[in-house]
Amino acid sequence: MDVKAILADKRAVVEEALKSYMLKAEGPLADHIAAMQYSLFAGGKRVRPILCLATAEALGANPKPLLPLACALECIHTYSLIHDDLPAMDNDDLRRGMPTNHKKFGEAAAILAGDGLLSYAFELLTLPELAATLSPADQVRLIHLVAKAIGPLGMVGGQALDLAAEGQAISFEELQRIHRCKTGALITASVQAGAIGGHADPQQFVALTSYGEHVGLAFQIVDDLLNVVGTTEELGKAAGSDAARNKATYPAYFGVEKTRAMALEAVDAALASLTNFDQRADFLRELARYIYTRTT
Amino acid sequence: MDVKAILADKRAVVEEALKSYMLKAEGPLADHIAAMQYSLFAGGKRVRPILCLATAEALGANPKPLLPLACALECIHTYSLIHDDLPAMDNDDLRRGMPTNHKKFGEAAAILAGDGLLSYAFELLTLPELAATLSPADQVRLIHLVAKAIGPLGMVGGQALDLAAEGQAISFEELQRIHRCKTGALITASVQAGAIGGHADPQQFVALTSYGEHVGLAFQIVDDLLNVVGTTEELGKAAGSDAARNKATYPAYFGVEKTRAMALEAVDAALASLTNFDQRADFLRELARYIYTRTT
Repeated sequence: MDVKAILADKRAVVEEALKSYMLKAEGPLADHIAAMQYSLFAGGKRVRPILCLATAEALGANPKPLLPLACALECIHTYSLIHDDLPAMDNDDLRRGMPTNHKKFGEAAAILAGDGLLSYAFELLTLPELAATLSPADQVRLIHLVAKAIGPLGMVGGQALDLAAEGQAISFEELQRIHRCKTGALITASVQAGAIGGHADPQQFVALTSYGEHVGLAFQIVDDLLNVVGTTEELGKAAGSDAARNKATYPAYFGVEKTRAMALEAVDAALASLTNFDQRADFLRELARYIYTRTT
Repeated sequence: MDVKAILADKRAVVEEALKSYMLKAEGPLADHIAAMQYSLFAGGKRVRPILCLATAEALGANPKPLLPLACALECIHTYSLIHDDLPAMDNDDLRRGMPTNHKKFGEAAAILAGDGLLSYAFELLTLPELAATLSPADQVRLIHLVAKAIGPLGMVGGQALDLAAEGQAISFEELQRIHRCKTGALITASVQAGAIGGHADPQQFVALTSYGEHVGLAFQIVDDLLNVVGTTEELGKAAGSDAARNKATYPAYFGVEKTRAMALEAVDAALASLTNFDQRADFLRELARYIYTRTT
């Protein structure tokens, strides 16, 4: 399986869907919408939408009608990046090699672009056309799960913990909590959204949730690692910025080699979660392995 | 009808519900949750929850099971205030006579408190217990309508337009658009949420939507007016701040007297929308009249 080629295909599908579901930058609100578009179309890897769609496919479902869900997840991810980059937060000037949203549009517009994307995500999650593939009850369940994953005890809370921890000595348990909330929760929710969209039975839902949790963890460990071993050019942002900020990370705790082993462990655990799935889950498996290959 | 006494009763009900539905400030995320609570319990008038509950009552429904919806609307309103007050936005130090969220907790925490409240609102809108009173299809419809009202073409867009208009000469049409988006949309959605919660038929839904739109307009006109004629003590924020900022407002366009007449017109239109409702809508009627009495 050529995972890179498949990823590129899936990315193209998501890209097109984002373009069709996103508002057009016209009329009195053109500037506001343009600020949202700028970050939404800034070369994201579309990991969360792809996880959502691939999970539905692993269950034998047609992923196409689920594209609004996939786009909603990317809107949420993009909002979180815009807000995280703000001067009051991580104060980053570059994101994926381009000026961050507030550098380009100013701080007020960037805050509102994030707010707009977050609200718009819930518009997409409730698009009437989703009724063709999801029961309203499943839709409500899905929205609840996404809202919880990104809220005060999920992604937003994780960012709050992360900021509070900067420059502090924190325990490994605290570091894990930050990761689980800040990046793990939305990645897991993306897989869960695909599971609901693919009509997973309760056992499958549990297995896929476990897959999502371990993939999310692997993803975060690798991200920490790349900040140490990657170059600014590869990353699209300043390499070594975590260490410069004295941020708690896996490599700061365990060193590069042990961190790499821990990433592999997380990938293996993700794969183990899929034991009872057939070859339609192969892409999910390859995706988990692919995360690890980024570290070497 | 003693509208002030009834308002106080209803406020107390909302206050208690907010306390029970809000997260407790404990555990690792206590600080983040405390920042959300600070603004949520800062003496808000609870106009949106009360409109929602009173609309359901006007349709003969028991408002109690709808309290999670009412609380969600207040979380959204509170998030919007926190973000609007930020230094990059309106840069306000006081809100309801107290330090604004960023003055109290810092800018990063305030941005995250807003983000947390917005996300949490969608958790509340999808609480499993709502299934006892709302069909899942109605819930999805309601969430869609709320998301739209507060998104890029609604409340967030309105704030973007408002910021862009500051210090600019804008037409009356533009001023109306700002108001409709920035404050009107969520007020209308609050009434619509109550209409769906009270199982309005399509005709009732249209009538109540019209009520919401006119009440929202009246509310905004009066707000503009109070900024001119009120005192800092009454307002809990700096009186005359709109004029100092050269903000487009109704009084800046039409003067105080004509603005007052326009508020009355909007109230009358709101009342006219309720022609086909019986005495159970009397509180909605009194509420519309009460908005106007604040100006005199």
